Amino acid sequence: MKREKLIAAVKEQMPERRWLHTLGVMETSVMLAERFGGDPVKADLAAILHDYCKYWPVQEQAKIIRENGLPQDLLDFDKELWHSHAGAFIAQSQFGIQDEEILDAIRYHTSGRERMTLLDKIVCLADYMEPGREFPGVELIREEAKISLEKALVVGFDSTIRFLIEKGKRIYPLTILTRNDLIQQINT
Amino acid sequence: MKREKLIAAVKEQMPERRWLHTLGVMETSVMLAERFGGDPVKADLAAILHDYCKYWPVQEQAKIIRENGLPQDLLDFDKELWHSHAGAFIAQSQFGIQDEEILDAIRYHTSGRERMTLLDKIVCLADYMEPGREFPGVELIREEAKISLEKALVVGFDSTIRFLIEKGKRIYPLTILTRNDLIQQINT
Repeated sequence: MKREKLIAAVKEQMPERRWLHTLGVMETSVMLAERFGGDPVKADLAAILHDYCKYWPVQEQAKIIRENGLPQDLLDFDKELWHSHAGAFIAQSQFGIQDEEILDAIRYHTSGRERMTLLDKIVCLADYMEPGREFPGVELIREEAKISLEKALVVGFDSTIRFLIEKGKRIYPLTILTRNDLIQQINT
Repeated sequence: MKREKLIAAVKEQMPERRWLHTLGVMETSVMLAERFGGDPVKADLAAILHDYCKYWPVQEQAKIIRENGLPQDLLDFDKELWHSHAGAFIAQSQFGIQDEEILDAIRYHTSGRERMTLLDKIVCLADYMEPGREFPGVELIREEAKISLEKALVVGFDSTIRFLIEKGKRIYPLTILTRNDLIQQINT
């Protein structure tokens, strides 16, 4: 599918303000790809699709996870995690994207994972720091991102973990494994 | 071994201020056992021994973990976790304690674990809130502990996780699983 048609399809799935967020993630992903030696074309495509299912009814997101062998433990945790895996599934099944690197970047853009690829890191970080984002600590993420994808991502995941603690919510264990792995990468 | 001899043996392993902490944990464990229907005698014994190896050289603690089939992943994480497992090993091998409930309460008093027993919870919480403890949030732990072991422990683990985030340190995954499990217990 042509990029323009894909963009039109994405815009239909979400309110205007979320589309503006997606535009921000696209722009930031390409910028980070250029900064850190990633593939800007893949970064752009993953960013376009990363929130495709974000505003779908949660039951529909859960159905995709349940019926297609996606990680079932997601259903025990925050609904915010579901759209990433559902989105990767739709990117492949509906839009015919076969590039595993792009699918993984969509799939893990919320939780992260151990041994994140360069593209995983770019899209996940862009999602944290695109220009429209405003939350305590986002400026520090942008600052770290001038030098290190890994350091910036740790600050990002720190803010997520702090947020979940404040809300009294459970923390998806993979996010802790991701953060641990990134700190290991920074320290070695 | 008689309680008095055990206490004398413990005192020799640590500086005076840590012995005062141990006294605080003993007193608080017994108080929590009485409050929540636990066994005060077991709580007292686990508390006496919980920090037995705390001031041993870390290499000695590591050696015990390495050579006795204790969880090897501990060695990849904060040294603060080691003395609990080493202590349970010594309690059994040196002091002949066979009661698994007491050994587990010593073993998991730092990390916690999923499905903590009542005694696990009592000793772990006493370690957080004994009268000598002073850190941001300890008053909230003491307040929650009037009603709920689980809620108080979540506040305790929250403070540990926040501390590790501030220090840029990795988080032992079992502590996250423990906190998730406690929140599940509170919510069901």
